[in-house]
Amino acid sequence: MQWSEGTAAVPVRWSGIVPPLLTPLLGFDELDPAGLERLIEHVVAGGVHGIFLLGTTGEAPGLSGRLRREVIERGCHHIAGRVPVMVGITDSAFAESVSLAHFAADAGAAALILAAPFYYPANQEEMQSYLQHLARELPLPCLLYNIPSHTKIAFDPETVRRAMDIPQIVGLKDTSGSMNYFHQLVRLLPRRPDWTLLMGTEQLLAESVLLGGTGGVPGGANLCPELYVDLYRAASTGDLAQVSLLHRRVIELTSRIYQVGPLHSAYLRGLKCAVSCVGLCDDFMAEPFRKLPPEQRNQIEGYLVEMGIEPYRKQ
Amino acid sequence: MQWSEGTAAVPVRWSGIVPPLLTPLLGFDELDPAGLERLIEHVVAGGVHGIFLLGTTGEAPGLSGRLRREVIERGCHHIAGRVPVMVGITDSAFAESVSLAHFAADAGAAALILAAPFYYPANQEEMQSYLQHLARELPLPCLLYNIPSHTKIAFDPETVRRAMDIPQIVGLKDTSGSMNYFHQLVRLLPRRPDWTLLMGTEQLLAESVLLGGTGGVPGGANLCPELYVDLYRAASTGDLAQVSLLHRRVIELTSRIYQVGPLHSAYLRGLKCAVSCVGLCDDFMAEPFRKLPPEQRNQIEGYLVEMGIEPYRKQ
Amino acid sequence: MQWSEGTAAVPVRWSGIVPPLLTPLLGFDELDPAGLERLIEHVVAGGVHGIFLLGTTGEAPGLSGRLRREVIERGCHHIAGRVPVMVGITDSAFAESVSLAHFAADAGAAALILAAPFYYPANQEEMQSYLQHLARELPLPCLLYNIPSHTKIAFDPETVRRAMDIPQIVGLKDTSGSMNYFHQLVRLLPRRPDWTLLMGTEQLLAESVLLGGTGGVPGGANLCPELYVDLYRAASTGDLAQVSLLHRRVIELTSRIYQVGPLHSAYLRGLKCAVSCVGLCDDFMAEPFRKLPPEQRNQIEGYLVEMGIEPYRKQ
Amino acid sequence: MQWSEGTAAVPVRWSGIVPPLLTPLLGFDELDPAGLERLIEHVVAGGVHGIFLLGTTGEAPGLSGRLRREVIERGCHHIAGRVPVMVGITDSAFAESVSLAHFAADAGAAALILAAPFYYPANQEEMQSYLQHLARELPLPCLLYNIPSHTKIAFDPETVRRAMDIPQIVGLKDTSGSMNYFHQLVRLLPRRPDWTLLMGTEQLLAESVLLGGTGGVPGGANLCPELYVDLYRAASTGDLAQVSLLHRRVIELTSRIYQVGPLHSAYLRGLKCAVSCVGLCDDFMAEPFRKLPPEQRNQIEGYLVEMGIEPYRKQ
Repeated sequence: MQWSEGTAAVPVRWSGIVPPLLTPLLGFDELDPAGLERLIEHVVAGGVHGIFLLGTTGEAPGLSGRLRREVIERGCHHIAGRVPVMVGITDSAFAESVSLAHFAADAGAAALILAAPFYYPANQEEMQSYLQHLARELPLPCLLYNIPSHTKIAFDPETVRRAMDIPQIVGLKDTSGSMNYFHQLVRLLPRRPDWTLLMGTEQLLAESVLLGGTGGVPGGANLCPELYVDLYRAASTGDLAQVSLLHRRVIELTSRIYQVGPLHSAYLRGLKCAVSCVGLCDDFMAEPFRKLPPEQRNQIEGYLVEMGIEPYRKQ
Repeated sequence: MQWSEGTAAVPVRWSGIVPPLLTPLLGFDELDPAGLERLIEHVVAGGVHGIFLLGTTGEAPGLSGRLRREVIERGCHHIAGRVPVMVGITDSAFAESVSLAHFAADAGAAALILAAPFYYPANQEEMQSYLQHLARELPLPCLLYNIPSHTKIAFDPETVRRAMDIPQIVGLKDTSGSMNYFHQLVRLLPRRPDWTLLMGTEQLLAESVLLGGTGGVPGGANLCPELYVDLYRAASTGDLAQVSLLHRRVIELTSRIYQVGPLHSAYLRGLKCAVSCVGLCDDFMAEPFRKLPPEQRNQIEGYLVEMGIEPYRKQ
Repeated sequence: MQWSEGTAAVPVRWSGIVPPLLTPLLGFDELDPAGLERLIEHVVAGGVHGIFLLGTTGEAPGLSGRLRREVIERGCHHIAGRVPVMVGITDSAFAESVSLAHFAADAGAAALILAAPFYYPANQEEMQSYLQHLARELPLPCLLYNIPSHTKIAFDPETVRRAMDIPQIVGLKDTSGSMNYFHQLVRLLPRRPDWTLLMGTEQLLAESVLLGGTGGVPGGANLCPELYVDLYRAASTGDLAQVSLLHRRVIELTSRIYQVGPLHSAYLRGLKCAVSCVGLCDDFMAEPFRKLPPEQRNQIEGYLVEMGIEPYRKQ
Repeated sequence: MQWSEGTAAVPVRWSGIVPPLLTPLLGFDELDPAGLERLIEHVVAGGVHGIFLLGTTGEAPGLSGRLRREVIERGCHHIAGRVPVMVGITDSAFAESVSLAHFAADAGAAALILAAPFYYPANQEEMQSYLQHLARELPLPCLLYNIPSHTKIAFDPETVRRAMDIPQIVGLKDTSGSMNYFHQLVRLLPRRPDWTLLMGTEQLLAESVLLGGTGGVPGGANLCPELYVDLYRAASTGDLAQVSLLHRRVIELTSRIYQVGPLHSAYLRGLKCAVSCVGLCDDFMAEPFRKLPPEQRNQIEGYLVEMGIEPYRKQ
């Protein structure tokens, strides 16, 4: 098992594949509880090493506080300890992040994950004191989530180095898309042997695990969890031939499924559409996005057939 | 009076100066009600034509939902109809924006103002349908708020043109910093004679009113409301000599007060510090920002003295 | 006359309208000398106060060194002192800028104009020493040309303030599109009463002259020199009604002529096409651009008719 | 040997390490011929598979056309066929690129390399026709050079796919820093088995060769050619343990040597300083850059000692 058991006294390290779970919706501000359960069963059956609720892929910043709490409650309840749960607490308001963190702890989450507050552009010094202040209020260990395309702020390597001095902060998920940045962080790992370093950009999963990362948070694992679990295993055991093969498959999948429709929302809409095509949940989306129209859905379906991705069958 | 009286049946147009009110705070998630009242008295005494609660200057995206509601309630109560109130409902979650809108309507606000949801980068088509969907849920007329530096999305002139077909949307405040963009919008005004077009960048207030805008939302009006009211009057009556004089004063003020400390937060921290120096409220700030340190506060105080801006005295 | 007479000993200030002349081409690396002469006659007849050869609008960075020298030689010869000539010496290589400067001086140019070297991103300190080094090598007074969209480097107000200490540098043309930036520079003017401050974004010409700029470099003056000359006069004499009228006409023209075809090249292609439609020169373009295709040319022609812009007739 | 022998009739593929040679300078517009020869001997002795003259690292866009030709002539003469030579012909002017290409062919270069023209922002369609037009004029096979941080234009995967239909274009060097982009290009390789795909960002060399790239153009190979040659060999033969070790060394080197002084120019100034410290050539730089000051040179020297990089000794 990839997840080191930990207690409050023993730092834990996340490794392996932790899918950022899509949030199945029935309509405006309305969760699809059955879809959520099917999705959880699907990824757990696929062998994932943890589940990340309420990330960017989970449309969290577009969901009401009430709905986010419903996701945490139902998600943790249904996962029921089979894999550890990480809960996103990113919010533009500090007080809301703290409140979500406590709710997640009460629901049984194992860790939190936090991107920079995303309205005001802030500098690194401001981020550093923000993290110090927030960490004091958190009831669970917390990973940083670096996604400057959405937050406008990257956690600079120097800011990460300082965050390593805060015991409550135990790792980072990087979705910057920059392997050069990621390599800077790998270089810092010897300072905190318990530190988790996850790759958020699935196209870069292969190399990040080959060169020192501890795992990944690939959106595509909502659709094909085994693919990413196998790739992680091949990379962490140095099976280069297998890595090459599975990496090419990831590139194939992402080049097709995530590139239908307008650029900015193509990843999210394409992924939710594909997951819908295989029957896991509907592809209703929170504002400001809308499901792909029929013609583009057909395109996605065609890709799934070509790639041999089969409809989901209840396990 | 610059504010056209309106009823539900009669479209209104905002003109004149509508300060984006700072949110006085006593501490973490704690409003300073007395400071809020002093600030309201100060700007009303200065002759402003409306008050904008919960904008970027009001640190709204950094405040909890609870605190935002307290600001709306106490603010509207204390203003008590002396000037119309505009309430910011910007949120990354659609449902939260709708909820705030209803709260504002119940509290007696006259209008709403909405920036793009600011986590996910979205395209213009997505913004157009988002606006159509949101407008249907709003109990009050709503202005758009264009601030791409914070939302990563600008409302393109074509998107604004389409929004003009939605009766519930009645204007736009532009904080893009681009007069070229603003001129594109002025060009659209003949399509909707009731449309409000406010300048959000106070350094551009003079020219925007000279060349077709209907007013402004200058942060500096928290400190010196008369300066901006006088500048608006001079510009709207074509008194070019007076415009030049007052415009230079605005540039002087903004070049000094808003340029102390690191770039990104200098405006907000400098303004709140200056308002604190004249005794209107404390300069405690919501995360991720912190008040200017003593040395920089001294610098601000020095500037206030040089510019002859006097301590606030109860009117 | 708007151009202060100067000698080597007396600093001069450029004021009024200085069109950035298009470079008429017959084909690859081949100047159209007759077109160049017609264009010069057209703008001189329109009352312009100077001519700027080899700017962005003149496609200078896309022209060979040989062709640039031919433009300088023929242009200065044909202008023959009727208006002063400013020559662009922007180049990624310092030595080429110096060489062009001497060529321009020998050909009778009155001043030079220089954007930042545009391949390497450089910082402000590097720009400051670059300017000091270059100024020493220049045989003529030189204006700075701020166009960060193309050079990736803006001349920060502090860098301009320092450049004001270099006697050889006598002004700045701003094409940043930011009136806030422009106002910062106007604030510096009292330090150098001989300093020229020209607006390069024609949509902002009205306000820049109303609020302290000394003139403009509008591309549209290749097509309608009188429009911009009249607008400059109205703004510099405070005739606000006339400014409004002519400004609206500029916005109309630029909103139509410069917005046909893909965004980035729409200005340059649209302007050259329009000038071609009125018969001044062909619209052959240097790489990497190509003339607008027939359908879009028809659109431009339609706009010209609607706006009452007539074919050029030999004066 | 990594370089497939080719004739005009037989397409060649570049593989292995091709250092982008620094341009040693004695002063303004003055080449250091002895330094150039020492540098060539150093990298050839280090086992490199080719040499790239006049790239970004070679400060080419900052050098006069005359000096660039001197570099080509002396460089090709001194290399004397020991390794193939690639010559950068990037210029903002098409005619200058063509002229340099012919000069390089006459001097005995094996291939050309071309970044997008870098003044005007252009779109992909414009880039596509630009490449078609330019390719017709080139006397040698040409690689594309993707470096959007400097040119403002990336060659999109679709543009690269189309460029693959132009026989004269035989590969691409990517310095975008985006492995996701690189993986898109690897996916295109089956379309052109003769296509070269080189990694320009040395921090990403390990993974790019592991996952399908054909080699790299690491600036650090000016200093330590063996390090990069060994890393290339380890990666191309699948020796993962060795790859990890050498990759960490590259990250160590680049994190130290390239991060002294201001951000933008730190790579170029740090590398030239380090190469100067080991005695290969002086660190005089072309405008707009200047050599690192003494204190920072000491820092670089300290790093070199710590990393065991020894002074160059004549071979």
